[in-house]
Amino acid sequence: MNHPQAFPEALRRPLPEALAASLRERFGERFSTAAAVCEHHGRDESPFPPTPPDAVVFAHTTEEVAEVVAQCRARRVPVIAYGVGSSLEGHLLAVHGGISIDVSRMNRVLAINAEDLTATVQAGVTRKQLNEALKSTGLFFPIDPGADASLGGMAATRASGTNAVRYGTMKENVLGLTVVTADGKVVRTASRAKKSSAGYDLTRLFVGSEGTLGVITEVTVRLYPVPEAMSAAVVSFPSLAQAIDAVIRIIQLGVPVARCEYVCERSIRAINAYSHTTLREAPTLFFEFHGSETSVHEQAELAQQIAHELGGQDFEWATRPEDRTRLWTARHNVYFAGLQVRPGARAITTDTCVPISRLSESITGARRILDSASFPTMIVGHVGDGNFHSMLVIDPDDPAEMAEAERLNDAIVRLALSMDGTCTGEHGVGLHKMRFLEEEAGDDALDLMRRIKRALDPDNILNPGKIFAL
Amino acid sequence: MNHPQAFPEALRRPLPEALAASLRERFGERFSTAAAVCEHHGRDESPFPPTPPDAVVFAHTTEEVAEVVAQCRARRVPVIAYGVGSSLEGHLLAVHGGISIDVSRMNRVLAINAEDLTATVQAGVTRKQLNEALKSTGLFFPIDPGADASLGGMAATRASGTNAVRYGTMKENVLGLTVVTADGKVVRTASRAKKSSAGYDLTRLFVGSEGTLGVITEVTVRLYPVPEAMSAAVVSFPSLAQAIDAVIRIIQLGVPVARCEYVCERSIRAINAYSHTTLREAPTLFFEFHGSETSVHEQAELAQQIAHELGGQDFEWATRPEDRTRLWTARHNVYFAGLQVRPGARAITTDTCVPISRLSESITGARRILDSASFPTMIVGHVGDGNFHSMLVIDPDDPAEMAEAERLNDAIVRLALSMDGTCTGEHGVGLHKMRFLEEEAGDDALDLMRRIKRALDPDNILNPGKIFAL
Repeated sequence: MNHPQAFPEALRRPLPEALAASLRERFGERFSTAAAVCEHHGRDESPFPPTPPDAVVFAHTTEEVAEVVAQCRARRVPVIAYGVGSSLEGHLLAVHGGISIDVSRMNRVLAINAEDLTATVQAGVTRKQLNEALKSTGLFFPIDPGADASLGGMAATRASGTNAVRYGTMKENVLGLTVVTADGKVVRTASRAKKSSAGYDLTRLFVGSEGTLGVITEVTVRLYPVPEAMSAAVVSFPSLAQAIDAVIRIIQLGVPVARCEYVCERSIRAINAYSHTTLREAPTLFFEFHGSETSVHEQAELAQQIAHELGGQDFEWATRPEDRTRLWTARHNVYFAGLQVRPGARAITTDTCVPISRLSESITGARRILDSASFPTMIVGHVGDGNFHSMLVIDPDDPAEMAEAERLNDAIVRLALSMDGTCTGEHGVGLHKMRFLEEEAGDDALDLMRRIKRALDPDNILNPGKIFAL
Repeated sequence: MNHPQAFPEALRRPLPEALAASLRERFGERFSTAAAVCEHHGRDESPFPPTPPDAVVFAHTTEEVAEVVAQCRARRVPVIAYGVGSSLEGHLLAVHGGISIDVSRMNRVLAINAEDLTATVQAGVTRKQLNEALKSTGLFFPIDPGADASLGGMAATRASGTNAVRYGTMKENVLGLTVVTADGKVVRTASRAKKSSAGYDLTRLFVGSEGTLGVITEVTVRLYPVPEAMSAAVVSFPSLAQAIDAVIRIIQLGVPVARCEYVCERSIRAINAYSHTTLREAPTLFFEFHGSETSVHEQAELAQQIAHELGGQDFEWATRPEDRTRLWTARHNVYFAGLQVRPGARAITTDTCVPISRLSESITGARRILDSASFPTMIVGHVGDGNFHSMLVIDPDDPAEMAEAERLNDAIVRLALSMDGTCTGEHGVGLHKMRFLEEEAGDDALDLMRRIKRALDPDNILNPGKIFAL
């Protein structure tokens, strides 16, 4: 149902000439129907074939976004917000055609309120850009999904990544949003107060709504003081089960670990080849500890002790910033390293998350499921949160491999659902997980989501065809 | 508009006889129309006069709640969920009449998943009851709004309290809910995974919805390991401004303080009289630090140093559990201590929250506004979050005092709104803050809330007349 071949042309209507003319007049060269531009905006990091919009508008301001949405609404034309194109589940594909609103030029840091530990940015600002802008303040923005995603996109998919085990996800770290609604109105979802009980939590409703309820144009996020001390470590284990058991014990003891990542031996091999590192090719945990000097020392001691008890060996420490960066760059590059294992390949990535007591079973089960695969597979994970990714490195032009990958993906997701887990910890539903969301949420919860969608976007113009069918 | 006298009888329709008969047959003595029972369920801790429902049902299970809601829906009769009645803003008042569903007997702890750091409880379980049940596990549930509120009620108002500065609010600590929808269906809002990007965040939509979108019947919450060490301290300051400046510096330095409370000199006087303590009658901060022995020591050292620099004196420490309990009981009793200042009085409580850089101005401004009051006033606050409460101790039978209190309340809220703050940090909107929500959110955001309400409760049977007018 959600297979790429299943985007029927019938869903697309030609772009109304009057709309094209009006947008061209208004935006000049910032309005484009060029094939290359549309094609670029009709894909993301998912393995789906490009499904281009009919046109692209490069917006500079919230007001411009509101204008485009209002014009599209008047003519029932879909709009899809586009940041940097790093989403993984087909979120950006124009399966109903329409206009892609590219917000990447909305890249101004609007305010850094260092005293309040908040910053407000336009939606196109990326996380690295924000952290660059924060350099002189002694503060940082912790959420790190690996890719240098836009803050708007990260909010839209409820992203998280390696630091979430300590600092939370976008859900916890977005204080408020500016959103353009389906009728082209501009709404600010919350004040800058750290907490509020003032009515429905519109912020959290838009966080994770994947562009289907409104277009996010500004994001106010929480910042954190750069810790006095940071220390990273790598440790390898004789087995997957021992590595994961170490994680479970560290979390259950309440060690406030900042990052806690599992990388399987195959991923390590790919990393070593790609990043010219010499990590031991075994099930491995990457840790990072943040705090005062003594607190970091204490956390590291405790983690090391638990790891040793479970057979962990070759503890390597990195405390200098450049060493930590090298370590985490290697970890972050696992996606690209994995693709290099097989030239021309694309990756299908699972994203299950389970209660941590089921994590060992869940990953071991996934590994068993993947053992039958006819293509390379790897497992990495934000295991401190119970979240991990299987990476299925497939030939996107081979339908048999695609089908096989989907079968394996299905089995891994079903296993997680059977453990009271979720089909997606941080990537979102997009096109690819729609059928899993049905299973996970159930008809009645999905009915609530559909009612909310219809109430806020009665003409279904906002990123239609994503999350659920209407 | 939101004055007690403004609940017109015209909103009430008599309870349909057939519904009463049906519920009486189904629930026997657990269905009551007795005046005393209804009166008890028609009030909360707000100063509004009782506004009783037409009947009360004491539910035992989610399925029973669903039955009652379905029957009420069929006859367009309002339903109001009732926990322990500790809300402060008129949430429980039956301004449109109808049935109060008392969930206080739904008081079973359904599951403690110690390994996952989660617990699932029926909505009537109170926070103290949950912590009692957790005693042998080495875990605790941190959210502490002072009153021994029900978890269902705390979720419904997005409550928080003294520990929120470190552990977050109900928003961060509810993993999932079981909710009865307006059409009597039972929906589970999320899996037990620690994070998820699976569709709209229904959990956060119901958290803080004050019973207007569904009846919460079960709550799954996050738990935390009891810290290895805990230490509390009291320190007094020459002035309000110095006390608050100390807080701002401690927060901005990222000290992970677990509690950080301001108590004004008048509140201290009331506490001393009520709790037979001998605290110095000056602007005072109450702190609590959680962590390892060395971490608590470090945090305490740093806080003490900052406090000293700002004129803090008479640091008193409490590390033994009984001493800490005595200290926090005194702090928690400030509400009742405040009422004792004036026999027969009731309190109107403000609940503003501002970005922390504006906190000093905001509290100083509130103090100045209150200086003109003809009745006793006090200020206490969860100042680490920028949230504080002014307590206006009025004679509820004196309309002039009520009107004066509302004027002062208005001025304090407007001041907070002018600082990009919120009218309610943790108490909710209820009846009392409806007009402030309009100002704070604006027409377009309020329009989104109304659309969501209409989509999920088209007949307006769920706690009608609260949060906003339809």
